Formats: sequence, C-alpha cells, structure tokens
Amino acid sequence: MNSIIISIGDELLIGQTVNTNATWMGKELNDIGVEVLEVLTVSDTEKAIEEALEYAGKKASLVLLTGGLGPTKDDITKKVFASYFNAPLVENKEALENVESFFLNYNRPILPINRLQALVPSGCDMLLNKVGTAPGMWMENDKAIFVSMPGVPYEMKYLMTEEVLKRVVEKFELPAIVHHTILVQGIGESYIAKEIADIEDGLPPYLKLAYLPSAGVVKLRLTGRGKNKSLLENEIKKTFEKIISRVSEYVFSELDISLEELVGEVLCDTKKTISTAESCTSGALAARITAVQGASAYFMGSIIAYSNQVKKSQLGVSESDLNNYGAVSEEVVKQMALGVKESMNTDYAISTSGIAGPGGGSEDNPVGTVWIGIATPSGVTAHQFQMGKGRNRIVEKTILAALKLVLVEVKSSFRIIN
Amino acid sequence: MNSIIISIGDELLIGQTVNTNATWMGKELNDIGVEVLEVLTVSDTEKAIEEALEYAGKKASLVLLTGGLGPTKDDITKKVFASYFNAPLVENKEALENVESFFLNYNRPILPINRLQALVPSGCDMLLNKVGTAPGMWMENDKAIFVSMPGVPYEMKYLMTEEVLKRVVEKFELPAIVHHTILVQGIGESYIAKEIADIEDGLPPYLKLAYLPSAGVVKLRLTGRGKNKSLLENEIKKTFEKIISRVSEYVFSELDISLEELVGEVLCDTKKTISTAESCTSGALAARITAVQGASAYFMGSIIAYSNQVKKSQLGVSESDLNNYGAVSEEVVKQMALGVKESMNTDYAISTSGIAGPGGGSEDNPVGTVWIGIATPSGVTAHQFQMGKGRNRIVEKTILAALKLVLVEVKSSFRIIN
Repeated sequence: MNSIIISIGDELLIGQTVNTNATWMGKELNDIGVEVLEVLTVSDTEKAIEEALEYAGKKASLVLLTGGLGPTKDDITKKVFASYFNAPLVENKEALENVESFFLNYNRPILPINRLQALVPSGCDMLLNKVGTAPGMWMENDKAIFVSMPGVPYEMKYLMTEEVLKRVVEKFELPAIVHHTILVQGIGESYIAKEIADIEDGLPPYLKLAYLPSAGVVKLRLTGRGKNKSLLENEIKKTFEKIISRVSEYVFSELDISLEELVGEVLCDTKKTISTAESCTSGALAARITAVQGASAYFMGSIIAYSNQVKKSQLGVSESDLNNYGAVSEEVVKQMALGVKESMNTDYAISTSGIAGPGGGSEDNPVGTVWIGIATPSGVTAHQFQMGKGRNRIVEKTILAALKLVLVEVKSSFRIIN
Repeated sequence: MNSIIISIGDELLIGQTVNTNATWMGKELNDIGVEVLEVLTVSDTEKAIEEALEYAGKKASLVLLTGGLGPTKDDITKKVFASYFNAPLVENKEALENVESFFLNYNRPILPINRLQALVPSGCDMLLNKVGTAPGMWMENDKAIFVSMPGVPYEMKYLMTEEVLKRVVEKFELPAIVHHTILVQGIGESYIAKEIADIEDGLPPYLKLAYLPSAGVVKLRLTGRGKNKSLLENEIKKTFEKIISRVSEYVFSELDISLEELVGEVLCDTKKTISTAESCTSGALAARITAVQGASAYFMGSIIAYSNQVKKSQLGVSESDLNNYGAVSEEVVKQMALGVKESMNTDYAISTSGIAGPGGGSEDNPVGTVWIGIATPSGVTAHQFQMGKGRNRIVEKTILAALKLVLVEVKSSFRIIN
C-alpha cells in the first residue's frame, strides 16, 4: 500500500502559497502505515491534471488529489477527474442538500454555480464535506484508488480525518511504519556519522537512518518498515541506545519534540514560571512558548518593548545605559530581563534585543547582532550572538537560542548538555 | 523555457518538513519568466531520484534538484546524478579549497567524508557554494539543463541567486510572465464570478484569472504570459479596472500586500502609533505587525498578559470584572486595550482574549470564542468572534480580524470597505 499525493494549483507553482497540505497528509498517511512515494504538484490545466492521474495511477495504489474543486471557472479538477474515468457528472442528492444547508446557514442566496458543486462523477463514492460545499470523490479503477478533495486546508483535513484515513485503515492490511527521532546539538552531522559508522553499516535493510541538520540541531531519524510494529519499535530503540552511547554528551532529547515543548516540560517538572521581554523578536518568542498546549501553567506574559520609550517606562531600563551602550547591548538586555521578571513575578525571564535589519546596522553592531538576557532565581546573564542576515531567519535563530538558554539554566533538573 | 523542481528527501514525504524551498524557487523562477510546470517531491532512494530525472528531463528544459547532498550516507543525490550522466565523480580543486576553508574558519578538524563533498561529476559546471560545503552542479544533455543544489534553504537560495538565476537569464531569451493580484473581502468567490462572468469569458488566451479564497479574503489573480511585458501589464491593468468597477465596494487592496503591510501603510500615512495587549494571541499579533520592515515607526510595543495576574498588574484590568465577566469578555478586552494604550502612549491599541483550546471552553464561552478590543483616539469598542477550532487556526484568524479592525478604524484616511 503506497500513495502519491497530487497537489493541484498554480498558486503552489508560482510561489504564492506554501504546500502545507502535502506535509500534513504525508504525516497522517505515514501514521497509519501508508508510504508516500511522491508528491506531485501540478498546474490547473486539463493536460497537467490528466497526465498526473495517469502517472500516479501507474505507480501507486492510492492517489490523493487536492485542489481545483471551487465553483469558479479556474477550478477544473472535477471535470478532468470525471473524464479520466469516462464517468458523466451526476447530481448527488446528499451533496446538494449539504450545499443548500450551507448557504441557508450563512443566510446567503444560492447561485446556479453553487448547485453545480453537488455534481460528482457517476459511480463515485461521494465523501460528504460537512465544512464546505465541495464534496470529496472516491473512485477506483484496476490501477488504484483515486480520491479528490478540496484544497482549502480545513476542508481537506476534515475529509481526510473523517473519511479517507478511516476507509483506508478498514479496507487494507497496512504494514507498520515506525519513525523515531532524537535531537543532537553541538556536533556536526559528519562527526556523528564518523562516531557511529559501524552501527550505520550494520543496520538491517528494514531500518533507515537519516541526518537532518538545521539551525544548530541535527535530528537523527530511524525509520523502520515491516509487519510487526513492536518488533520495529524494539529494534529502533536498541539501535538508538547504541547510537546514544557513542554521542551521549551531545544528545539533548531522545524525543522528537520541539525546543518549546522541552522548555514546557522542564518548567512544568520544576514548577517554575517564565516571562519574556522582547525587542527584536517582538512577541514571536512568547508566541512560540505558548504554541504549546498547557503553557498557561508556566508562562505568565511578556512586555514587548519595541521602542526605547517602552524599554524605559515598562521595563525600567536606564536612560543613560540606553544612550551609552545602545538598545542592543549587554546592559540593556540584562535590565530588560530583570525588569519583566520583577513586574510579572516569575522565576525566570528572558529578553531579546537585536538588529533584524535590513536597516539599522552599524560597524560595531552589524545586522544580525543579537543580545539575549536571562534572569534566573540566582542572577542575570547576557549572551551575544551573530545571527547572520534575513529578518525572519534572525528572529527564528534568536528564538531557538533563547529557548536553549532557558534549558541550559534549568538543566540541573534536566538532561541537557550545551 | 519551462522547468520542473525536484525536491529530494524523505522528511518532505513523511510530513516532518514543509517544502518551503519549492515555494521560494517557484516565485524566483516566475519572476524571471521561467514557468514552473511541476514540483516533484521524491524519496532519498536511487530508484526514485533516477526516475525523477528521467521524467523531468522529458518534460522540461530546466530541471532543478534540491536535497540529498550532505556528507552522510543517507544523502545519495550526487551519486545518482553522476550515474544518470554516466560521468565519474572527480575532485574539483576550487570546491575542495572551499570545503577546507570552511572547516578552517569554524576551527573544526576536516574529516575524509567532508573532503568527498568536493567531488563533482566530470564535465559538470561546478557552482561554488560560499555558504556551505556542498557545491551546486550544472549539467546539460540533449534533453535539458539539470542543476543539483543542497536542500539547506539558505545554501539553495545562495546558489539560486548568485549562480542559477543569473546564468538562466544570460543564456535564454525569456518570455514575460506577469502576475497581478487584488484583494476582495466580504463577498464569496461564486458571487464575484457571477458579477464578472462576461469579463472572464472575454479574456484573451494569454490571460488567466484565478480565485484564491482564504480566511475571509478572496485573492483575484490575473496571470499574463507573452513576449511583451508592458503590453501584458497594460492588459492586466485594464482588465482589473473593469473587474474593480463591478465589485468596487468589496475591493480592499489593489495590491497583493498582506494585511499587516496595509496596516503599516495606513499608520505611516497618518503618522499614528499602535500597541497591543495580548492574551490568546500571546505576541503573535505583535510579531505579525513587526514582520513588516519599518514597523518601528508606528509600533511601540505590547503587553502580553497570559495570566490574569498580569492583566491586573500591567494593564489595570479590574479584579471584580475579571471575576464577574471572566477574562474572555467585552469588559476585559476594553480595559486591556485602554491599559496598553495609556501605558505605551499610542494613538491606537488592540487587545485579544479568547479560548484557543483544546481545553478551557464552557457552554457560554466555547473553544474559539474570541473578544478583540480596540482603543482609538475617540474611545474603545469590543467585538466578539467565533473562530472555530484548532489552536493555530484560532490564533491566525484572530490576528486577521484584529488587523482588519485596525484598518476599519483608520479608514477615513484609507480606501477600505468592511
């Protein structure tokens, strides 16, 4: 059982929209044991969609299409889909009732082109879309199963979760696919590879090791494919034990959880609280911390001090230090961290100030210079970084560095090596 | 001149990594007039990469590969790439010097597998990667041009910008591709289609109209392909003038700029300032506002009041109102907005409080309930929303609603219809 995802839409090819649908679908399919062979992104043209159906049907047993099911003329997937199966479009009563109730609920008049949404290829299994007007369509031929779904992410997710994944699990005996990832920090991928070369060489054919470097962290992922899930899990566990014994001082998590989840775990375990004072990250650090469910147990709040005036009035940063050292300085981030720690009455506080660019750099403080301060129950420290270029990248790297600093400070209760 | 992007990496297929590389490349290629026919994402296996090269070479004149060029064993793109061209791998002197200086700069010992990074297929045009160790490789055969690049985003971007795009522009006479997008709000795509049906039917074959609905906004995109760029631009301009005359009351921007950019423009034009007081968005709104270059001209800062304690101490929210009405209420968001407006001394202030879930909902305030407050020079108002389910989606919808409220409040100086 394997699949190809066909993502349809010019917006994906001209760089207007990121294809997050395929990412989400890939994860869900893997979780139930369906291997995703390829993702094929094509244009909204008859030729492109036809060829994609032909191509995918030859290679995979499950072909999932998203996109091109809107009511307007640029959306042609349904027409091509029906013609590929030589099936005329027929009105589906249940789908029509769904369209009508949708417009009734929103108190909007229904147009003729809205009713056309209820047409499906004859012989298709209509998948009722309770969160939109375009139904999903499940068709089978001698080659494969083909399912067409809308490209609107929450409509696609609804149909995948409520219909497609359930049906696939019921219909097929699926193999187990097990992924496990550990996080390593402070050592490059080539050095890890050298340390574990013999382990890697001795891997059985059903286990695959991957190195995924990014932002100062290398993820090591072992993937196992086979019939027996618990056997695979056990093999992966044993292999990682061997790997970890070789690079133990660099392993900072044996779970593939994000840094913000790790921070959450550490703070929950130690019953400590945190706040942030942000200049260059401007709330993005707080948003990251609270993206973790249950963050209200340890995160109290933040003061975003984008202007110097706010740094003074809300965080008590000294005007003379701002003048003497500038906003991007050791002195200022220390005062920012201490200021928010006191006013929000937290155990830890972290502060950021940097030059995200593209303007604002100087010879002493070029674009990418970031100071991070951290106040703890025992004092305050500040750390300088050079984060390179690019506004978003500087903010992202600053968030990661800040989260790591929190982990380092609370490490007495947690297995982390910087 | 058209292209296919081949993205290589299991992490893209199992949902571990979003394929942002292809999005970025699609945009850049379009900008220079290279149409992207397809994006094909494949696994790190010899068979998959070989078949992808074969497939793409038949369809496109430019095939761009990313991924699989790391030094570790899971990275096999270079080997398959060389074998596809029957070209042995040979050491490239310039690439080797680059690898050596890279390790020298970071003061790390160079390993044998790092030196292997300097091997390239014989006959290839080596593209020097000054920000990493894996060189780009440009190969041509009778079918197409093939370029292999690393998958690390900033290395790929460096090679695309400094080498690939420049060479393509020099080598080929490229057609013009012109996209223009306008933003429409408060009307569904099917109603727009009805209003402009005759305009759409009369479009010349070189113009294509697309409807992209998302989060309460419909983007209308016209794409023109041809030889004469200014002619296309003119045609698109004239067509949009006709379209806008039909739905003028719903058009809220004639540029494809984000809501946060619009907010920035409006505030700059009127020389007004803003601050935020955030509970459920927890800094994400401030981060969005400051993602716009030059935001420091109008954004002063925020108070993120995740806990009720901080709502009281930092924003002056009344304890009795918190007790009587709860944190997610009209009274509380009004006080939050007024509180931050006063303490940060801004012209406008916007506040958010809601139930992002999955826990915390009640019968009166189910998950997805969000109150947004907005304080202006003339007073304060509050607005209730039901944002549906899903933590990230609730936050995202709250950000969009908040930005729209700002635009509506400052609309006297700006052409916006709610």
